[in-house]
Amino acid sequence: MNSYGTRYRVTTYGESHGLAVGAIIDGCPAGHRVDFEAIGRDLERRRHGAPRQEEDRIEWLSGLLDGVTLGTPIAFAIRNRDARSDDYENLRNAFRPGHADYTYHRKYGLHDHRGGGRASARETTARVVAGALAKQLLHPVDIRAEVDHLGPERPDDTRGGTVACRVLGLPSGTGEPLFAKLSASLAAAMMSIPSAIGFEMGAGFAAADMAGSEFIDRWNPDGTTQTNHCGGIQGGISNGMPIEFRVAFHPVVSLPSPVECLTADGHLHTLSLGGRHDRCQVLRTPVIVEAMTAITLANFKL
Amino acid sequence: MNSYGTRYRVTTYGESHGLAVGAIIDGCPAGHRVDFEAIGRDLERRRHGAPRQEEDRIEWLSGLLDGVTLGTPIAFAIRNRDARSDDYENLRNAFRPGHADYTYHRKYGLHDHRGGGRASARETTARVVAGALAKQLLHPVDIRAEVDHLGPERPDDTRGGTVACRVLGLPSGTGEPLFAKLSASLAAAMMSIPSAIGFEMGAGFAAADMAGSEFIDRWNPDGTTQTNHCGGIQGGISNGMPIEFRVAFHPVVSLPSPVECLTADGHLHTLSLGGRHDRCQVLRTPVIVEAMTAITLANFKL
Amino acid sequence: MNSYGTRYRVTTYGESHGLAVGAIIDGCPAGHRVDFEAIGRDLERRRHGAPRQEEDRIEWLSGLLDGVTLGTPIAFAIRNRDARSDDYENLRNAFRPGHADYTYHRKYGLHDHRGGGRASARETTARVVAGALAKQLLHPVDIRAEVDHLGPERPDDTRGGTVACRVLGLPSGTGEPLFAKLSASLAAAMMSIPSAIGFEMGAGFAAADMAGSEFIDRWNPDGTTQTNHCGGIQGGISNGMPIEFRVAFHPVVSLPSPVECLTADGHLHTLSLGGRHDRCQVLRTPVIVEAMTAITLANFKL
Amino acid sequence: MNSYGTRYRVTTYGESHGLAVGAIIDGCPAGHRVDFEAIGRDLERRRHGAPRQEEDRIEWLSGLLDGVTLGTPIAFAIRNRDARSDDYENLRNAFRPGHADYTYHRKYGLHDHRGGGRASARETTARVVAGALAKQLLHPVDIRAEVDHLGPERPDDTRGGTVACRVLGLPSGTGEPLFAKLSASLAAAMMSIPSAIGFEMGAGFAAADMAGSEFIDRWNPDGTTQTNHCGGIQGGISNGMPIEFRVAFHPVVSLPSPVECLTADGHLHTLSLGGRHDRCQVLRTPVIVEAMTAITLANFKL
Repeated sequence: MNSYGTRYRVTTYGESHGLAVGAIIDGCPAGHRVDFEAIGRDLERRRHGAPRQEEDRIEWLSGLLDGVTLGTPIAFAIRNRDARSDDYENLRNAFRPGHADYTYHRKYGLHDHRGGGRASARETTARVVAGALAKQLLHPVDIRAEVDHLGPERPDDTRGGTVACRVLGLPSGTGEPLFAKLSASLAAAMMSIPSAIGFEMGAGFAAADMAGSEFIDRWNPDGTTQTNHCGGIQGGISNGMPIEFRVAFHPVVSLPSPVECLTADGHLHTLSLGGRHDRCQVLRTPVIVEAMTAITLANFKL
Repeated sequence: MNSYGTRYRVTTYGESHGLAVGAIIDGCPAGHRVDFEAIGRDLERRRHGAPRQEEDRIEWLSGLLDGVTLGTPIAFAIRNRDARSDDYENLRNAFRPGHADYTYHRKYGLHDHRGGGRASARETTARVVAGALAKQLLHPVDIRAEVDHLGPERPDDTRGGTVACRVLGLPSGTGEPLFAKLSASLAAAMMSIPSAIGFEMGAGFAAADMAGSEFIDRWNPDGTTQTNHCGGIQGGISNGMPIEFRVAFHPVVSLPSPVECLTADGHLHTLSLGGRHDRCQVLRTPVIVEAMTAITLANFKL
Repeated sequence: MNSYGTRYRVTTYGESHGLAVGAIIDGCPAGHRVDFEAIGRDLERRRHGAPRQEEDRIEWLSGLLDGVTLGTPIAFAIRNRDARSDDYENLRNAFRPGHADYTYHRKYGLHDHRGGGRASARETTARVVAGALAKQLLHPVDIRAEVDHLGPERPDDTRGGTVACRVLGLPSGTGEPLFAKLSASLAAAMMSIPSAIGFEMGAGFAAADMAGSEFIDRWNPDGTTQTNHCGGIQGGISNGMPIEFRVAFHPVVSLPSPVECLTADGHLHTLSLGGRHDRCQVLRTPVIVEAMTAITLANFKL
Repeated sequence: MNSYGTRYRVTTYGESHGLAVGAIIDGCPAGHRVDFEAIGRDLERRRHGAPRQEEDRIEWLSGLLDGVTLGTPIAFAIRNRDARSDDYENLRNAFRPGHADYTYHRKYGLHDHRGGGRASARETTARVVAGALAKQLLHPVDIRAEVDHLGPERPDDTRGGTVACRVLGLPSGTGEPLFAKLSASLAAAMMSIPSAIGFEMGAGFAAADMAGSEFIDRWNPDGTTQTNHCGGIQGGISNGMPIEFRVAFHPVVSLPSPVECLTADGHLHTLSLGGRHDRCQVLRTPVIVEAMTAITLANFKL
């Protein structure tokens, strides 16, 4: 299903080269005056450096009266004005390597060859809008993500990297034990971002090589801890320290040089991928990481 | 909430030192003859080397008639026979470092000091039973997890490590795009296991340093790929290759030597942790990783 | 929340006098060629005789390629072109009797005075579209509702009535025991329609006065029954006989003559209700009953 | 699925003639001291006059410490001590008229012939326990149901009837618009009770014959209304007046005289139904109506 969350539920729609992308945000409390400029700034961060330039004008279809939320579902649409479906015409019957063309075809029996359909990064536009609104609702909780490691430059100029995210001001006691642990929820949220391939809290994989006496975060008398190896979450529930996690992104799989594609009848053809693609999409992911974090936290906090 | 899954839904119950732990399994199809011995073997793997020895006799309360599933909910109970709550008496008002005592207290206003309550590894017993049944329903899909890296031996003899899991025979087309991606669902499932602190698919964090031309898995004409850097999942949907992922576990936080605990009124006291605890719980986690994988896949496949 | 269903999930949005109403339909299988004319005919039935005349042109925002479903979420918008919000200006601070103004105000702390906001019958437009599509997916199951009783004509010309619905061709075995009984699901679906105030299956309230020997539906050897007092559902699961139920609708509460309205500060004012309203909205409800039935059945069948 | 509710979630288990019936209650807040006697009184009301006499001793498996809720899932089991499965031996291959034997068989491919399995009234024991606890959490909201109409006495001594339920003290603003309307949720809850066949709010079916000017509930200046034809709910949300609804129950379908049963291979056999059955089960339903009402309200209020 295309919904995320139970209390602040975001249901996105739209194919990369269809008429529009957007979402319905359900569960937003009434009476919040929306800061549209802040939403615009986050959209601008997501668009930064993207070869496809969309104006990303948001059409608010419902849920607002004079810029204030009504408590009813907020629907919005962002038109796909700069879509060039023709670029993809040679891919109508071919599966690109590294993309979801093949798996979508296996699942649905057909796929939208026009720019990845739902699997495209274009869909994240809707998440950024919903996330930017969630950030406002979470105020004064502060969510900041940034690229903390960029893969080395390569001849094909495609690079992966990792994004570190830090949440300040989240009260202790946020999260649920067991299956809806805050850590598990954040992991799912991050792994739902296109190109995400790894997630770790606090000390993460490095913790596997620590001794217990090294790993445990020693108390200060005020309930804070001297270190934060656990990333601010214990037993799935926030402890009042900063929430800290990292997400690994693999490099873009739309290569500039021709690649061997598979056809439905089992032949390999070397094709140039049309369309316009990032060479380093990881630079645009921090705002998406922030958005999914905000939506996740809004589900626990609202 | 204490439920996991929507189609094969497991709702667990029980505190570490209460009367019993167990679960209701909802969504199991009718007509399956249960292999009780296979369930027993998985329980034995979970118990292996644990200082607390429970017989783990399963009492099947409902859902079966002559050993065959009825399609009705399967409830079971495993009594806590070897619980020694007195061991924890000195912890009634203290929060251990590295444990969930403090966060539970902050969330619920009270906590069950007897061995971690719900946050205890004891709860995973119910998951192993539900997972062992799920494996049978998934036949011939094969799920195997093992410790692939153990942290170095330390003076306090507590070690973390990583567990690698590999799923063979899962048909392509399993999973959902976007928010219920198979990768996102597995990430959440794994991060819900006590002590889990990191998750990666296929090449994982190493993929951040790869070039796109190195990362993409090149096609064979039959739809398999020459490498499996994506871990068998593209766009959140299985591609027919083995599903491969790794989970990082931090070392146990119940140290053998006394540690400074925090009291509710803000004092630090050096206490010896009673109870009997693993020194290397990671050795017992592969069967839990398998169980959560099986339950997750059962939710997509049933 | 504004979502209905788990497998064929309809999330509606839009206030009566906002920019648009519409929905996202999630879970529609891929590959279905949409019969747009059939959807138009159902919209026409809903609009029949309504004093407010909307063209009800559907803008399909996503989920379709060349008129065929992609398996991705289907979003659509219907603009509110004929909205006259000014008609409601005198109601900005008043609660009409019989309407949801007061309860919305109590719940949200504010209400959209413009024509009932979300509580308006305008929202059912989105349901009718989603239901008309569901009918196509259920083919050859046949769903027919009609007014079977109309309240007597009254001086204020406002009448209630009952609608009878009959579903033919639904296979036996549809439904779930216990809480998601087909009968319970249909009851909830019907009672979610504006003005619905009663629901009964088969013999319904009259069954309270029958003897058991009179009520039970005697078998024919082929598994059909000689009567259908149970309305085609036993233990919450369809038995292959026609599904038969009735829904009671109270008369419209927007009276033509002035009524006493309550203000937020506790005064009563006699006001004329502006806006244009039905005098006998029950005549337009059969298509909504069909739509909610179709959406409900699609959730069991898909 | 066998779960009801999202915040106060009750998952029941157990076949009529299996080892036990019971439930897991998830979402009960921590710190509530349970009134076990009140639970026992409700169980006694449910058992009243039943031909099968169970002691109904509740075994609390988890979620409590010294009689106080921990905020963790509350699991309980009630053993089936007085089950006489042999009574049903002649029904192993036959479908009784009016029962769910046939529909279960069509759905699952097999059925539990021992007293109706899950479809039996025995399952409501678990609901009564969960409901009795919910009532305590809702204090001081007061829920009272009683038989307000009993069908006429008949030669076969089986009678249906209707139950009226009244909820006092529920604050205005409880409920959700649209699909999770309080009225829709109550309708589903009531229709999930065995033998329920009709539901109406306030004036109910009689409202179909009222004029709008007769039906609307006129305001008092304090926000109460002079009548309560809407049953205390407008637009799906409570208005602070008593919640009032009625439920119709058909007569028992286990007749004292032999009935024609259908076999799986299409033959009709006249059989005497073994087992011990009520002649007038409607007398025992008020406490179940109260329980389902309480569980439903707990989901809105907690």
